[in-house]
Amino acid sequence: MKNHTGDCSHDLPKSADILAKQIRKMRFADAIDTVNKLDIDQAVLVLKRLPIHFSIELFDRPELQKSAKLIEFLPTKHAISILNGMSADEAADVFQEIDERTRQRLFSQLQPTTRAELKKLTSYPEDSAGALMTTEFIAVPSTWTIETTLNHIREVEETRETVYTVYILNPISNQLLSAISLRRLILAKSDENILDAAQHMKPISITASTDHEEVARLFRRHDLLSVPVIDKDNRVIGIVTVDDVFDAMTEEMSEDTHKFGGVGAIDKPYMQISFFEMLKKRGGWLCLLFMGEMFTASAMQYFEKELEKAIVLTLFIPLIMSSGGNSGSQATSLIIRALALRELKLGDWWKIIRRELSTGLSLGSMLGLIGFSRIILWQNIGIYNYGEHWFLIALTIFCTLVSIVTFGSLIGSMLPFILKAMRFDPASASAPFVATFVDVTGIVIYFSIAAIILAGTLL
Amino acid sequence: MKNHTGDCSHDLPKSADILAKQIRKMRFADAIDTVNKLDIDQAVLVLKRLPIHFSIELFDRPELQKSAKLIEFLPTKHAISILNGMSADEAADVFQEIDERTRQRLFSQLQPTTRAELKKLTSYPEDSAGALMTTEFIAVPSTWTIETTLNHIREVEETRETVYTVYILNPISNQLLSAISLRRLILAKSDENILDAAQHMKPISITASTDHEEVARLFRRHDLLSVPVIDKDNRVIGIVTVDDVFDAMTEEMSEDTHKFGGVGAIDKPYMQISFFEMLKKRGGWLCLLFMGEMFTASAMQYFEKELEKAIVLTLFIPLIMSSGGNSGSQATSLIIRALALRELKLGDWWKIIRRELSTGLSLGSMLGLIGFSRIILWQNIGIYNYGEHWFLIALTIFCTLVSIVTFGSLIGSMLPFILKAMRFDPASASAPFVATFVDVTGIVIYFSIAAIILAGTLL
Repeated sequence: MKNHTGDCSHDLPKSADILAKQIRKMRFADAIDTVNKLDIDQAVLVLKRLPIHFSIELFDRPELQKSAKLIEFLPTKHAISILNGMSADEAADVFQEIDERTRQRLFSQLQPTTRAELKKLTSYPEDSAGALMTTEFIAVPSTWTIETTLNHIREVEETRETVYTVYILNPISNQLLSAISLRRLILAKSDENILDAAQHMKPISITASTDHEEVARLFRRHDLLSVPVIDKDNRVIGIVTVDDVFDAMTEEMSEDTHKFGGVGAIDKPYMQISFFEMLKKRGGWLCLLFMGEMFTASAMQYFEKELEKAIVLTLFIPLIMSSGGNSGSQATSLIIRALALRELKLGDWWKIIRRELSTGLSLGSMLGLIGFSRIILWQNIGIYNYGEHWFLIALTIFCTLVSIVTFGSLIGSMLPFILKAMRFDPASASAPFVATFVDVTGIVIYFSIAAIILAGTLL
Repeated sequence: MKNHTGDCSHDLPKSADILAKQIRKMRFADAIDTVNKLDIDQAVLVLKRLPIHFSIELFDRPELQKSAKLIEFLPTKHAISILNGMSADEAADVFQEIDERTRQRLFSQLQPTTRAELKKLTSYPEDSAGALMTTEFIAVPSTWTIETTLNHIREVEETRETVYTVYILNPISNQLLSAISLRRLILAKSDENILDAAQHMKPISITASTDHEEVARLFRRHDLLSVPVIDKDNRVIGIVTVDDVFDAMTEEMSEDTHKFGGVGAIDKPYMQISFFEMLKKRGGWLCLLFMGEMFTASAMQYFEKELEKAIVLTLFIPLIMSSGGNSGSQATSLIIRALALRELKLGDWWKIIRRELSTGLSLGSMLGLIGFSRIILWQNIGIYNYGEHWFLIALTIFCTLVSIVTFGSLIGSMLPFILKAMRFDPASASAPFVATFVDVTGIVIYFSIAAIILAGTLL
């Protein structure tokens, strides 16, 4: 511990005593808020004064910040007790963030079962069911009665994440046969066989590699509280509970919103992001988009002669480009969401193209007509003089808008598909990215159409 | 029923028999998928052949489409049984969509309790906890023992949405005293008093007017499976269960994504939206944005003289405007999400302005430098000739980018606050909306800065 300077440094242990007493009376969520506000040194002092089972409850929640750092600074014995006591899934998350050296030191001292669980759970990719699952569930052989099962639950309850579903296994092969809810258990007669009392349908199950969005879809579809994770031989290797799915989905929603806004994924509250982290998360994308957008300047330099001859065309550049960008981000937002909810599959791309083509053409015609009418109107009531070729200019704007809105819709809808096919997150097809892409091509479309329609007159 | 033409019309009742038999063996979610694929006439035939308790299960899930239409077409007695049997919260949702005349006809024939529940539940605003809650929960007086409570659960279980939490009431005032989980119930001794066995902390509760996002935050924060809804006298009027919150949040996330992409909220899967509905949801916003963006043309017409003198300035218009829009949508996406997760309060606006001001200035300087260097570089290695005042042009671009990125960040971050303060959904601050706003002001900023820096030379 560092040497503290300043007035209250010698009060630290005393204030930790008081604080620990207060914290013990709080709800876990409030206790966590309080600990989160302390710096590491103080928090460690407080944690050392809390009953171990209380500390375990705090570490069991992902809301506790810097849990890895806290484990590092706690006395080894204390840290080991907490890690042994924690839910396996949370312990695995914390363990992965502990620094390499401490991790090795602690690992050898953990209980063999905890060690095995950690080894298994830390091996799954981040967005898989394996990373969400815990190994603390209740499973009983199909030969048991209701009473034996209830007694078993009472015995092991404390070490299980949820007891609301009991999994029933083949007593020899350990394969999953059925599942029974606690609700159904307490309704059944005590001497009834557990398998007879259970639901007769094969339970919904997932594998460790099922991705988060699919897991969430199953929970919503079947109103689940937990789901068993099975291996290829139909043996239960863990369960995923609804609270973890809820947390994961909330986090994923934040990431998707950020990505869609063109920000690198941030998993901290806005006010806790440091200034430089903020610059990094935003600056990177912003610079990249800027460099992409620089091609608009190149495109315009290419059409330099046309520009000089027909300055009036420049008036509509922002209007045209934003329309392409807007229709693109509309399409992207619809498709990203539909892919996330599994309403669309990769193979649907052809259907989407056909839909977006007709939608884009219609929307483009709408905007085209508004733009066309505006020029005709402004010209004829004398608000602005677009020159002698005003009608051809209006026609150019109409055709450009139809093309560019259609193009925007197609690009916006296809980008998430392309990203997904390339195994990137479709949500990375952010609105700014689509807009930039459409902007650059938009300039080319605009001046090409102008070159055709205005050839021999203005150009 | 309409008169069917075509080959298989006379087979309808027969195929309905077969289908009903198959459906009865399915999981509810699969059964619903099957029913959703039928047209109303067929679906009604099938439903009439299903056991009433099975139909009730189907209607109890929000995934069943056209449930209101189905109720309308079912024989009155059948419809009444289903409505009486459904969870009160789902029945209320369906009931509100039934056409006025049928609703009146059915209402008078419902059980008095169902009638009272429906009346109460249909009175809450759409995004409130009241609209999510159900009135079917288990509450017992604090004088009961564990055994009496368990027996009571066994009796009433079938009519309750969840039995995993039992609410303990003051036997005289009916006020909420505590809550006990089923988990804890089966652990306790059977003759123990229920209040003694319960948790000693005041249970987390909400009121009927708590909004969805706050409800979701509480579920995440305290890992809840259900939460009691209390009135102003601390009496339980209903509960909200985790599956309904999960559904509501998923729906809200879709809406937010769509809004952020500039699409009117759509609550149907992409492929099920009709062509005209799609045009309506997208066309409305797109036209509105287009008309907003037309002000860029007006702004540029205003700077007509400057444009003619310095065509070179037009080259950078897309670049400058998109940078403002991009920084704006970054800020918006961060703030919208932080507001949704309750990480920020309305009162924090001043802190946000200060943060975004410094972030915007830094990001703007980054982009400004890139833009500045590009002009210097292109000029000096001879890729493009920006004319004799190339250095002043580079300076103009630098200053404009700094201003516009800062402006974009400020507008993007403040719009959600302003919307929230005006009681609109902050998520309506869509990326296209922010971009349009920044585009128009961007033109003015650009030409104003140019007018200052280039006065006496190019302009």
